[in-house]
Amino acid sequence: MLTDCTKSTATNNNSDLTSALMQLCASRYYIAHGEFHSNSIQRGRSCGYGPLGVDLKSNIVDQWWISVMRSRAQVFGISTLQSARDKEGVRLVDNSAIEQTVSNNELTKEQIKTRLQHVLQRSVSFRTSLLKGALEQFAPSLELVNKKLPFGLAETGVCHGPAAENADSIDWLPEFTESSLVWFCTPRTSSQWLDYWSRQRLQWWRKFALGPSDFNCCDATDEELQSGASRGVKILYRFPWGTETLETLHNLGSTELLNSHRGSRTKLHCKDGRNSVVPHVISVSGNIDRGVLAYLFNSLQWLKKVDNKQKLHQRQVLKLHPTLSPVKVAVDVGRGSTMELRQVCEGLLQEFLEAGISAWPGYLDTTHSSLELMHSKYDEMGVLFTVMISENTLENGLLSIRSRDTTIRETMHISEVKTFLLKFISAAANV
Amino acid sequence: MLTDCTKSTATNNNSDLTSALMQLCASRYYIAHGEFHSNSIQRGRSCGYGPLGVDLKSNIVDQWWISVMRSRAQVFGISTLQSARDKEGVRLVDNSAIEQTVSNNELTKEQIKTRLQHVLQRSVSFRTSLLKGALEQFAPSLELVNKKLPFGLAETGVCHGPAAENADSIDWLPEFTESSLVWFCTPRTSSQWLDYWSRQRLQWWRKFALGPSDFNCCDATDEELQSGASRGVKILYRFPWGTETLETLHNLGSTELLNSHRGSRTKLHCKDGRNSVVPHVISVSGNIDRGVLAYLFNSLQWLKKVDNKQKLHQRQVLKLHPTLSPVKVAVDVGRGSTMELRQVCEGLLQEFLEAGISAWPGYLDTTHSSLELMHSKYDEMGVLFTVMISENTLENGLLSIRSRDTTIRETMHISEVKTFLLKFISAAANV
Repeated sequence: MLTDCTKSTATNNNSDLTSALMQLCASRYYIAHGEFHSNSIQRGRSCGYGPLGVDLKSNIVDQWWISVMRSRAQVFGISTLQSARDKEGVRLVDNSAIEQTVSNNELTKEQIKTRLQHVLQRSVSFRTSLLKGALEQFAPSLELVNKKLPFGLAETGVCHGPAAENADSIDWLPEFTESSLVWFCTPRTSSQWLDYWSRQRLQWWRKFALGPSDFNCCDATDEELQSGASRGVKILYRFPWGTETLETLHNLGSTELLNSHRGSRTKLHCKDGRNSVVPHVISVSGNIDRGVLAYLFNSLQWLKKVDNKQKLHQRQVLKLHPTLSPVKVAVDVGRGSTMELRQVCEGLLQEFLEAGISAWPGYLDTTHSSLELMHSKYDEMGVLFTVMISENTLENGLLSIRSRDTTIRETMHISEVKTFLLKFISAAANV
Repeated sequence: MLTDCTKSTATNNNSDLTSALMQLCASRYYIAHGEFHSNSIQRGRSCGYGPLGVDLKSNIVDQWWISVMRSRAQVFGISTLQSARDKEGVRLVDNSAIEQTVSNNELTKEQIKTRLQHVLQRSVSFRTSLLKGALEQFAPSLELVNKKLPFGLAETGVCHGPAAENADSIDWLPEFTESSLVWFCTPRTSSQWLDYWSRQRLQWWRKFALGPSDFNCCDATDEELQSGASRGVKILYRFPWGTETLETLHNLGSTELLNSHRGSRTKLHCKDGRNSVVPHVISVSGNIDRGVLAYLFNSLQWLKKVDNKQKLHQRQVLKLHPTLSPVKVAVDVGRGSTMELRQVCEGLLQEFLEAGISAWPGYLDTTHSSLELMHSKYDEMGVLFTVMISENTLENGLLSIRSRDTTIRETMHISEVKTFLLKFISAAANV
């Protein structure tokens, strides 16, 4: 019997909550094992993801694309390179050239310096954001829209954060996945567009949230504004340890666009009615890895249950939105796992996968455990439904299907499960 | 009237074919403008992609995932970091530390060397393949399958190629998107599995090909074998300039797995019936960027047409497989483009996008051109269908829809188009 269903912020302090979620993420295949990965994602950086983390992240990325591509017809996807020979970004040089210089004992101090300077000139820079790449694609994209504003260029991809300030502590170059929409509009409408996208983005984050009130937005302070920006808006999530920025929106005016463009300024001109203008730029930039973590925290529920003997049990359920849930259905077997039951499982799993329903082969893990433990495991994985194949299924085709959210177990014919799941998933997506 | 429909290898030599396709890719939004991007992708590296290239590449990646995830239940997705502190891969160091050393005039030669050695010790290495990351995830993944073989770990992601040999010519670090399936199986079955995956992968490449015979496979020679591999198979594509490798499959035995694992060997043990074995590893590694180019070349057709005045016209059609085609339908308007027609276009486009049909807002480009030129443009873009909205549509709801592959134009009611397209796309996917 379920007695309470609130986040137990009262019984667990914040650092407990954080470490409990991190432990759950590692043991339930969201993030790769190791302290390193758990630290990494807590700092808004990418980490090694396990099978469920990969799918959660890719579901978020897919939804982001759907939202920007479908909200307005005038958004085009682009893809730019991570590294270039450039002055901006994280600059790195090839080890081997430096090694050669160091190991050559015949060089004088001046010769070493000259060589090093030569090596530095050929340094490679890794992008720290996707903005610059989009600005460079602005002029070639004008043809697509016949110079008509507004339109946008969208991209998701890995960027490399600046190396940590304390140089002794870095042993890797931080990376994160950025979602970027760069929106070009007329100067007189840029302020409205900033408002439009701020609203749209906040709505998007909240759409998939269990607790929408943990997602908020506020104006950026003058110190936080990106260079050249006249106004900025941040979309925030309240993590147990404090508030962090998930996405930032900046009205960059036309300065950055003009700076990024070599050559004649007239190539940047667009139509605004009968006038010709250099567009203003709204940059909408999100951190997908931090988004993954926000949704994980947001969906974690602690449920209390009192058993027949009046003993209190506490269990964790990852109530991820059905659209984001990496596993829609787990296929598992009751006791007496035989070859025959396994074949039924394989067939059913295949049917789900072919219908595009992400399914988990629970029957592979034949460690015998109680039904209770099995359900806890799937609840912690955020699995929407668990299908149980038993001896019964072989006789009359009936199986049991349990819902994560209601914990209700139903009996259903094996031929009906696929349609039931497809309907549930598409209904949840359209809410 | 169409008179001939063969690839005109006779009338065009290979270098013409290459430059024609590259030009088409740049002008039709597949790759970003510039000689650099065109060179880059020809060498099997990633380049800046335009809106259509982004979608083509992502369709290929999606199909790859579907094929490896659905072919066998025991494949799990993972995601590893691009850079780490490591000895393997492309090693790079931070510019700023070197700059500081060079600009400090008070340092002696020995001090400079000591500092540089210190900097080199903190170098970051970028992965050159996804294999190593998967091998490291092997032990933590054993729990997923209860130590039962076979199973696989799948990942797609950016890797950094080794810097060019001629160090003076590089001005960037080459990058490419790799698809990687690392398959763990018992030693006694590894040879069969290599055959299984080689067949499966070749079938997959051919499935989407217009000319399947350009995709082939052969055994790797001893020199081409990856270190530790007992046998290798390459999947090749015949480009106009010669044959290139799209994917390689290696039977790596257990050496690489043992090397990648620190600590007790027993942690690597799996079940083979009643025995306990260290699994053999089959590595299946593809270059997605080269795959994009292979499908572009493979689908380019030169069609000849004789007009009423007996004049010969030649046109190019990008006959990409319907599943891979980045744009399923273009929405355009006839002459007399009014506000009303544009609104109909916007509504229809929105309807397509919401149904998950990738649609192109052709009506945005209002440069008046002939119907002939418009169809050439969409054929070069590989657009499956072109929907034309006209004054007529406003009156009776009828529009014209033209197929890229048959060039036949039909009249259809506006309310029927979506269902028609959805049926066509799903039928093509199941062939």
